[in-house]
Amino acid sequence: MGLLGSSVSLSVKRSLPSIFVSGFSHRASTRQKARQMNVADSIEPSLEKCIQDSDLVILATPIRTFEGLFSEMKPYLKKGCIITDVGSTKTLPTQWAAKYFRKNLFYVGSHPIAGSEKRGVEFARDDLLTGATCIVTRKASTNAKALKTVKEFWTALGCRIEVISPQDHDRIFGWVSHLPHLTAAALVNANRDGDMHYAGRGFMDTSRVASGPTNVWTDILMTNPKQCAHGIGRLINELTKLQTAIEKGNGKQVKKLLEQARSKREAMIRHKIKKKELF
Amino acid sequence: MGLLGSSVSLSVKRSLPSIFVSGFSHRASTRQKARQMNVADSIEPSLEKCIQDSDLVILATPIRTFEGLFSEMKPYLKKGCIITDVGSTKTLPTQWAAKYFRKNLFYVGSHPIAGSEKRGVEFARDDLLTGATCIVTRKASTNAKALKTVKEFWTALGCRIEVISPQDHDRIFGWVSHLPHLTAAALVNANRDGDMHYAGRGFMDTSRVASGPTNVWTDILMTNPKQCAHGIGRLINELTKLQTAIEKGNGKQVKKLLEQARSKREAMIRHKIKKKELF
Repeated sequence: MGLLGSSVSLSVKRSLPSIFVSGFSHRASTRQKARQMNVADSIEPSLEKCIQDSDLVILATPIRTFEGLFSEMKPYLKKGCIITDVGSTKTLPTQWAAKYFRKNLFYVGSHPIAGSEKRGVEFARDDLLTGATCIVTRKASTNAKALKTVKEFWTALGCRIEVISPQDHDRIFGWVSHLPHLTAAALVNANRDGDMHYAGRGFMDTSRVASGPTNVWTDILMTNPKQCAHGIGRLINELTKLQTAIEKGNGKQVKKLLEQARSKREAMIRHKIKKKELF
Repeated sequence: MGLLGSSVSLSVKRSLPSIFVSGFSHRASTRQKARQMNVADSIEPSLEKCIQDSDLVILATPIRTFEGLFSEMKPYLKKGCIITDVGSTKTLPTQWAAKYFRKNLFYVGSHPIAGSEKRGVEFARDDLLTGATCIVTRKASTNAKALKTVKEFWTALGCRIEVISPQDHDRIFGWVSHLPHLTAAALVNANRDGDMHYAGRGFMDTSRVASGPTNVWTDILMTNPKQCAHGIGRLINELTKLQTAIEKGNGKQVKKLLEQARSKREAMIRHKIKKKELF
């Protein structure tokens, strides 16, 4: 019942009003707020009560709690139950699910690309998912019917679906999402406190994500270690190319590398404008 | 007579209307536009004619043209003339000035922190400098009266002045401005074209400056090679710390490094809000 879990719940109540939504939180204060905001049809302090009749269970807790929750949930889940989540990494959750959910329990990973710098049930919105891309992960053993149901679910909430493997998901997001976060943090840490008073818009934008919640991001990075470390290696390689060209006084090479970046980024912007993700 | 030079000219016409402003451009099309926009009192195709009666000369060309221009200008400058510029690096221009301007010619470096992603005289604005910080550089040999005049000049145009040495300027801006540019370019180059379709707001902001004009930036980076290379080394060091912690599964250390970055950046934001640079 955080920002994302509560927003999913509100979206279901708006777009699929006949579905009964049961929410769980171990915190009394969160349950109280969720009840006041009418976020779900019932708000349970007991995991068992929350999930025992569920056809679909959606985890919206920090990723590193998933394995423990899978184990705890398993005895209470009814036959045929589909389990998904909204976590930002997918390889480890998929491996954990394979350990606990065998026959008659079906895990399909989801990653709706939606969120906010705000946190908590009080900032939940029933339109947070509208127009968002939702990655749904499939591997060879994924149950086709469960996959179809999960795709239909997110589509009903207004998402655009893309299906890829957990490994591809973590490589792509390791490089386009987790790496920028690491980059921003490293850029701030490479600078002296006193100098940062001189920072202009360039520094502010390049470092913006470093102000994000550190517990959420530690969770993401630590559940995608291979691709984060690999991404850092690629970035260091590109930085070293620029450093070498600058040290050699090779302005042509520096301009070529800047031009490569500029044209790649412009191609991305054109693609996003075409897809109406940017205006 | 580019964006910044023309904006300085328009600002003088607004704030110091009794001063005669003479502009130079070697391009006929630029001179024509500048005349149409009434950017200066005269627009000259001849450098000699432009500067021969000047009390203050302001270079607003790419930094790597400064040495040649200093040499070309020298015979035409009248005794007591003050020369400044609006370039983003200061150590090399100061060294070049010392070669050409000896007695009766006084160089003082300036760096108004103002600009735009737009380029050319047609985007010039008479308020571009209003409220901007302008760094004015001083070294032991800087003439005190010339320094005072340059400070008064930028103050009259609405700038807030900070006086530092050329070396301090290039270290600070090498790390808070040139390094973010290198970082953004390297981040884009480290990513695959196809993956960038998945990029969200985090990637977009972290890489924004990589879309900047590559000739201007090559000029800046190549005239501040030592601090750019040093800054990249510091960044690689911070990235390696994160990489090592992630590879070792040391979540505590990752969280500590992210927290260090977050709190440093928040301190910067608080400082800027206090100084009314941010609202």
